Parts: sequence; structure tokens; C-alpha cells
Amino acid sequence: MRYSRFFIPTLRDDPADAEVISHKLLLRAGFIRRVTSGVYDYLPIGLRVLRKIEAIVREEMNRAGAQELLMPMVQPCELWEKSERMEKYGPELLRFRDRHNHESCLGPTHEEVICDLVSRELRSYKQLPMNLYQIQAKFRDEIRPRFGLMRGREFVMKDAYSFHADDACLRREYQLMFDTYTTIFNRFGLTFRAVEADTGSIGGSDSHEFHVLAESGEDLIAHCSGCDYAANVEKAVSVRDVPASAADAEEASEISTPDVTSAEDVAAFLKVDTALLVKTLVYHLHGGENNGAIVAACVRGDDQLQEIKLAHAAAADSVELASEEEVRSVGGVSGFVGPQGLSCPVYVDESLRDASGLVAGANKADAHVTGLSMQCDVADAVYADVRETREGDACTRCSAAIELSRGIEIGQVFALGKRYTEPMEVMFQDQQGKRAVATMGCYGIGVSRLMAAVVEQCNDEAGIHWPVSLAPFQVALISMGQSETVLAASESIYHELSDAGIEVLWDERKERPGVKFKDAELMGLPMQIVVGDRSLERGVIEYGERGGERIEAEPAMVAAAVIASLQQAGSSH
Amino acid sequence: MRYSRFFIPTLRDDPADAEVISHKLLLRAGFIRRVTSGVYDYLPIGLRVLRKIEAIVREEMNRAGAQELLMPMVQPCELWEKSERMEKYGPELLRFRDRHNHESCLGPTHEEVICDLVSRELRSYKQLPMNLYQIQAKFRDEIRPRFGLMRGREFVMKDAYSFHADDACLRREYQLMFDTYTTIFNRFGLTFRAVEADTGSIGGSDSHEFHVLAESGEDLIAHCSGCDYAANVEKAVSVRDVPASAADAEEASEISTPDVTSAEDVAAFLKVDTALLVKTLVYHLHGGENNGAIVAACVRGDDQLQEIKLAHAAAADSVELASEEEVRSVGGVSGFVGPQGLSCPVYVDESLRDASGLVAGANKADAHVTGLSMQCDVADAVYADVRETREGDACTRCSAAIELSRGIEIGQVFALGKRYTEPMEVMFQDQQGKRAVATMGCYGIGVSRLMAAVVEQCNDEAGIHWPVSLAPFQVALISMGQSETVLAASESIYHELSDAGIEVLWDERKERPGVKFKDAELMGLPMQIVVGDRSLERGVIEYGERGGERIEAEPAMVAAAVIASLQQAGSSH
Repeated sequence: MRYSRFFIPTLRDDPADAEVISHKLLLRAGFIRRVTSGVYDYLPIGLRVLRKIEAIVREEMNRAGAQELLMPMVQPCELWEKSERMEKYGPELLRFRDRHNHESCLGPTHEEVICDLVSRELRSYKQLPMNLYQIQAKFRDEIRPRFGLMRGREFVMKDAYSFHADDACLRREYQLMFDTYTTIFNRFGLTFRAVEADTGSIGGSDSHEFHVLAESGEDLIAHCSGCDYAANVEKAVSVRDVPASAADAEEASEISTPDVTSAEDVAAFLKVDTALLVKTLVYHLHGGENNGAIVAACVRGDDQLQEIKLAHAAAADSVELASEEEVRSVGGVSGFVGPQGLSCPVYVDESLRDASGLVAGANKADAHVTGLSMQCDVADAVYADVRETREGDACTRCSAAIELSRGIEIGQVFALGKRYTEPMEVMFQDQQGKRAVATMGCYGIGVSRLMAAVVEQCNDEAGIHWPVSLAPFQVALISMGQSETVLAASESIYHELSDAGIEVLWDERKERPGVKFKDAELMGLPMQIVVGDRSLERGVIEYGERGGERIEAEPAMVAAAVIASLQQAGSSH
Repeated sequence: MRYSRFFIPTLRDDPADAEVISHKLLLRAGFIRRVTSGVYDYLPIGLRVLRKIEAIVREEMNRAGAQELLMPMVQPCELWEKSERMEKYGPELLRFRDRHNHESCLGPTHEEVICDLVSRELRSYKQLPMNLYQIQAKFRDEIRPRFGLMRGREFVMKDAYSFHADDACLRREYQLMFDTYTTIFNRFGLTFRAVEADTGSIGGSDSHEFHVLAESGEDLIAHCSGCDYAANVEKAVSVRDVPASAADAEEASEISTPDVTSAEDVAAFLKVDTALLVKTLVYHLHGGENNGAIVAACVRGDDQLQEIKLAHAAAADSVELASEEEVRSVGGVSGFVGPQGLSCPVYVDESLRDASGLVAGANKADAHVTGLSMQCDVADAVYADVRETREGDACTRCSAAIELSRGIEIGQVFALGKRYTEPMEVMFQDQQGKRAVATMGCYGIGVSRLMAAVVEQCNDEAGIHWPVSLAPFQVALISMGQSETVLAASESIYHELSDAGIEVLWDERKERPGVKFKDAELMGLPMQIVVGDRSLERGVIEYGERGGERIEAEPAMVAAAVIASLQQAGSSH
């Protein structure tokens, strides 16, 4: 491709509204442009990368025996009613009415549509197992789209759905997809980690997320320094010591703490370890059997409550902090809420089960209770794991220290079981001739988010550093000046490489060399060839990896040398 | 691909709701399934064809120097306000509000989004010309989706947009795209015709449509038997004789015609040629400067009014038949409307300009006027071409007879000029350093509709007959029975062909040969190889084109022979 004929609008400066490096660089290097909140154009150079990601994903999915199809973006809501997810999915499911007043939605995921299809076509166990996937634009009406392609509203996803006659078969496919994802992310040259995950609004029993490790990641993942345990903190378990109390046998008694409310302030005021404070939070449940109910939850003063764990403990879809009025309605006093005497269920973190000598709010203004023992003083407590795992906790498997890292979720696999196949009636005739419900798995990869995740890991001061497998062009062929000699030598190499199937961006623009080098490095092409009058006079052309040493070669040898270097660089991933 | 592991749900019978042959066959052969009105799943075998269509379109667009990008499906409505198309586009533009109450729409076409992008990035004439295209799902909320992929709501389209410094450059690109479309449709092996077209809701000055000729087509196209003139009847011009009147000098006079209203009935009642009747219709204008105004239009009794021509004549976006009340409001009497004495503008077809001895409604109940001359008796008439071209009319260029055919529109090219670039401010600095508005063209191909159009032209009693370039698999390899000899010989050919890059569907199912042949023919694979015990005993394997003679060859020679046949079949298109 000749640069002067290609639409690559690069920017000199970082766009003001871009917070993370991938967002900045993809905008600056002309890969994407914003259309509206969370919605982007993929410019020609960006689409080239997106297509390469898609091609690798497709190749490995096909190799694993999955079959590609294409479902629509617009879905009828009646399918979501049938799967009982219409209400649960919340406002991220963008709904609208068409001109005939039928309620439709933009597909954020396709469990309903695929189950509807398969339920109509599946007859016999002989057709199983079956794994169907698509690569397609999805829409989720995120409340706060941000970070460019990292959390967009319209995005490209690979979503696969497998159907099985029994759970053993589902487990095999789950493992196969897990392994396939590992192969795919390795081919992208990514440092990533598979972690146990919550199943969220998709549902099912087991799930793993794949995370690219990066400081800008929105997820926090816990992993053991001693064994291979790793999980999203939404799900991670760990052990903490019971806090040592100075006054074990102390009886609970009320104490005045005027205007002292936060765990840290109370601990300082009373001169006790924050770990002995009981942090009590009041929540409103959403979804599930107790939809709308109020509950309280207690964690240690030095812990954070993990809301997703609380939602699971309370059998709700999600939880939301209660209003002051709601807190009052269950007998709590804001700022001084404690576990005693509340008229709602109280979920207490397991780490407090055997603790005593604790300090908690007294449910009276300006008062706390000291010398509290959960076992003795909070009789109705429901014990559950509701705290967020912290750095330094002990691993439940090997007792080694837990570490925390930030991750960008790029894929997730789910063993769904019959979560969808039962309500959507995906049935088949089994080997005994009986009608049975199929079991199901689903497997997603964030294709457009991967583009951002790769940039988060592969960048430097000068710009993006694409792995050879994903670069929009493998070679930047830079002509220094416009002399006939330079252009002729450049054109010859351009054709030689193009004929060999190498993608070359030939920068023949009437620009200063500095501009050309900057643009080539910004957009991250892995290899550079520099054709200049002076080196040609010496009978050589320079080439080298982006950001590396330049090597001189005779003009006739350059193409072959570059191809060899690319093969080496490509195989290093 | 092994048939038993591939998801191809074929149907024995025609689905009840499918009216046209492509809809029936694509459903029966397992290429598509309906999700909801006008919205389809592309099953694995259908997606393979769709991708081949896309690949050919992409290859030729790239060869013509266009650059592929990808725009979003969800668009902000403010762009449509800016282009002044928000109201004009009508209810096919599906609008909705997102969770932040921003008005958005599903992209039916992308002039607004591309102009917004280019306006932000275009600086200098040096960046022009530029042709950007995408292949993407579109949504148009059709009032009556039908015929499967022929008129769907969600469909796949290739849409290209070119920008130019001047009209001469636009004209060159328009011609290049016209030629590129011709190449593309020839590669599909289609019988098609390019015709002059109305610009419809897209706008601009010039436009051509490309039509596949087929009885099931929704469009009517007029073409000359003597020269290369061809146009959609929405736009076609032609000449008709002035009807011969028996009483040239007759004066206009009123005559009683109790209960006789239709042109045919009046002609029979008065014993005159229907051509001498004046059919007068009253319309309500939509859009344009006279939005909401009432107009009348007159054509000969043996002609049909062409509403799109009337809309153009009256400078409206569209027209709709007036209500009885509206007819009364301009002095008309339903059933007896005539051009005289109406209080609204009267558009009279050119073919009536010099006619006399005409019969028209008298705008009184049960009365007509005879001996009417437009020139003498309808002084305010506005003459315009508002009739629909008929078979047998004379060509305006060469006077030969016009013929009519039905067509399926598969592509359209538009010279838009500054229709969008002016309101959307797509500006650049010209060679003189002045700010100028770019001119623009746009070019669409109905990718998913093409799939149906090809089937409309390429089918027989047994099913679809795909051209080699589009077939989901080039070869059906049919194993007769399950003997080890048969399966081993089949597998060997399967690998030999697959290694040579030939796509083979190996039917190794435990089904009767009759079922296998029927499925292979239904889904339209161009070549068959039949491996059976009896022929293997004779040392041969049979192969042949779908529906053609079978040829015998030694097992070792079959693959090479089939490859040669495919090359021949492929090059015949």
C-alpha cells in the first residue's frame, strides 16, 4: 500500500479525552475514531488489525471443530421473556419497538437466539455435540463507556455456544475451549492469566475468565504466590487470621463516640486495631426471591465488602447500598449501624465468626458497642464469604500469600448446564429414545477489546509495538526524499515483498524523514526499511526491527533478509 | 468437512410461508432460518456463501483503489438532523433512545457517519480523491419484509463513499465503480442489466441501478429493443402517439354518465378509445416546500400514473392518494374528478399536451366532459412526464419499441454531488488555498440479497445450482454405504482434494444413497464424486457435474480430473 493513497489520519498530540494508553495510541495512530459515546469507526488501518484478530480466532475455533454461523444483531424480546432474562439483564439490554410495535432489542449476547434455532432443528443425540459460533457486532448500553475499545457500547465479539447430551461431554468441550483460548492468546503474544470467575448475568455453574495483565485493567484478580490458584476478586476466596483481641472475656458494653463514624476514626478514637472494628453496611436486594428486601452485611474494619459475593449469599441478582430511609426502616442509625438489633437478615463474613472483643455501631446516634462477640451477641447472624480478598491473605489451598493484579478481561468460558436449554426447550431424543434436555456451554472473546489489550501490553514512548501476527502492515518502507533513484529502489523492494505476500506500507509521501519515522513508529509496524540517496551511493539499504539496530544490506538482498527477520520475529510468539 | 459433523438442517418440503424460489430453497437446503420478521440466521452453509460473495466484492473494490473501514450500526440522530434527512427518511429509519436518553438509530445507510468522519480529517485537496467502503449489517424497518433475503430488515450491504475535489473527478470514480460493479456481477455468473434510476431517499443527481433479471423481481425495468437505453420505470421516459380523436373540432360539452366512473367503463359507455379518457388523480404531497399541499395529476385512460415522477414534478419527497375530503376541498367529486375548475395545481402528462377530443370527469356527480382539449380547456395545466412507461412505447432515443422486464436490484451507484457534503461541512483547502466543499458519490451492493438473486437465476427442479465461485463446497463426495473399502477410498480422495484447496463436503452419513444425492443436489454443490463398492470392484470411481453425465475414472485419477473440471466450470463464468 502506498501511504499517500491510504487514509491514516495520525495526530501529533494525545487526545484530551483519552485516559488509557491504548485509547490514546489507537486514536493518535489513526486506527479508530469516536462516533458517539462508546461507539467507534475502525479506520482502514484499524480494520486490518481487527481482521487479523478475527482470522486467528476463527482459525483456532475451526480447528477445535466449531462451526461458524451468523445471527442477527436485532433480536425479538419474546425470546428473552422465554429465557427469563428480560428483567434480569437490566438497562444494558437496549430495547426498542419497531414500526409494528414489536418489542425488540440489540443483541448483547446470543444465548436466546441460538437456543431458539437449535431447539427447532435438534432431533437426536446423533447431532450432538455441536459447537456453533459467530464473530459479530454486539451492543451493550453501558452506563459509563470508557477507555476507547476497552469498554465500548458497540463492540465486536466472538461468541460460541455448545450443546451436549450430557455433562461429561460439556466438561470435555469446556476444557477444549479453555485450551483453544490459551492457544489463541498465545498466538497474540499476550501475557495473560485464566482465573476462576463469577458467572454474572450469563449464569451457569462454572466459569473462567482470561485476563491480560495490565495496570489499566478494570478487573482485580487474586492469584496465589505458591500454587496455581487464581480468581477474579468477585469470586476469589482466601483465609485471614482471626484478629487478636486485647480483651477476650470482655462483655459487650455501649460507649459514647460522638461524631466518630468511619472504621478508621473509631479505631483511632478507641485506640484499637482497625481489624477489630465491624463494618456494617445495609443493602437493598435486586432480583431473586427476595427482590426489594433490605439486608445488612458485616466485614472487618480493614476489609472491603464484595458486593457480588453478598448478592450470591442473599440469592439476589445484585445489591445496591440502601438509602438512609431504608437503613432507618430496619432499625439502623446512619454512621452508627451495627449488627445488633436490626430487623433484617445480617450476613457476617466468615472471618468474624470466631472473633470477639469487637467494636461495632450501636444503632444509636453517637454510640458504639465494644467487647462484642459475634457468637454470643449476634445470635441470628448468617455466616458467608462476603469480603474481598486482599493482598497477603493466605491461599485456601496451599496457605501461601495471595497477590493481586489488575487485568483486562478478554475472554470468558461458561459451563451453563441447563440454565437456557430448559426454559428454551432445547430437547433431543437420547440413546434410549427418551426426550431429554441438552446441556450447554458458551464461550466469548472480546475481539475489539483484544485490539486495545494488545496495545496496553505492547507499547513504548514512540507508539504501538504490534506483534508481527497482528501488525496492520509488517513492513514500513520509508523513502528518504523524492529522488528518482530512491523511488525506483523503493518500488523494486515494494514489489518484491508484496509478491512474497508481505504487507508493506510504502511511505512515498513528500514529507520530512522525521515525520515518516515518527508515523511508522507510532502505528507500530514491526520492521522498517529505509531507502536513502546516501546509503544507495554506498550500495546499501538499511533495515531493522522497529526500535532496534539498523542493518545494512545490498539492495538485492534486502527483501530476503527482511522476510527472514519477520519469520524469526513471528515465531518468537 | 464431514457431513455428519456439520450443521445442515435440510427440509423435505417447501416451507409454507416462502413465496419465491430463492426463499424456499435457501430454507429447505439449510442456508438460512428466520428469527423474526425480515431477520435471519445464516447457518454455517449459508455463511460460507455469504463470505464468498463478500470476498469477491472486497477483492474488486480493493482493486479499484477503495479502502475498507468499518462504521458502527448504531448512529447518533444528531448527524441525521445535520444532513436534514431525519424527517425525510421516514419510518424505515429505526429510532430509539439509549439509557441516557440520547436519540440514536440503526444505520440503514452511512452517508452521515462517513461525512462526519471525513469532515473531521480532511484538510487538503492532496488527500482527494478518497473512496472508503465497508461490508456490514444494515437495518431498515421495512413495512412489509418478504421473500426471505430479498427484502429483509437486517441485511448485509457493501456501501462505499467517495470524495472528490471536483465533479470531473467524481464522474471518473462513478464510471470506475460502474465498471467495477459490472466485473463483480459477471464474476457471480449473473444475467443483469444496469439501468438509469431514480435517486430516491439517498438523493443526488445521477444514479444507476444494477438489476438481476428475474420474474420474482420487485422492480419493473424498461429497456429499448433497438438501443442500449434502460431505466427503472420510476424514471424511464418513452414516447406515445397522440391519440387519434374522431371529432377534432368538437367543443367541450358536459354529458350525463350516471354511476360510470372508471376509465374503462366510461370509454365503453361512450364508445370511445380508452386512450381518449383523461384519468385524473388527486394527491397529497409529503416533504419539500409544499409539504401537505394537494395536487391533481392527469394521464391517459390507458396509462398508469407513476407516483415517483409526480413527486419530482411537484418537488415533493413522496405523494400519497388524497382522501375523499381532500378531493372535495379542491373542488373535485370522487369518481368524476376532471382537470377543469380544480383549485389546486394540475400536472398533466406530456402525452396529453396536444390531445383533443378527450373525455374527462366534470367535477360533478354523474357527469363527464367530452370534446376536451388540454390546450384550450385546461389553461393552467403544468405539463410533465408523470406516466409510467409501457411495453411497446417508442424509445426517445431511437424510436424502437420499449420492452419491460422484472428485476431484482442488487446494486446502485449515485453521483451525490454536494447533497451531504454541504450540510455536513466536508471541506478542504483547494489548490488555490481556498476552502471548498467536496463532491461525493456513493455506491451500494446488497450482499445478502445477492445470495437470493443468484438462487433465483440458478436453480432447477432438484434445488440450487451454485456457480463454482459461490458454492458453499465445490464438491459433494458421496460414500455409498459404510464398507471399509468405500470409506477408505473416500477418505483418500477427501484428503487429496482438501490438500489441493478444494472445499469438499464428504457425506459419510449412515443414510440411503437417495437421501445423499437429494441433499447434494438441493444444496447445489457443483461437482459430485460417488464412491461405491460395485464401482470400486470394477476399479473405478464415478464423478460428474451436478445434474450432468457421470464419468468413470481410476481412483488415483479422480481428484485431478475433478480439479480440472472445476477449473473449466469456474472459468466459464
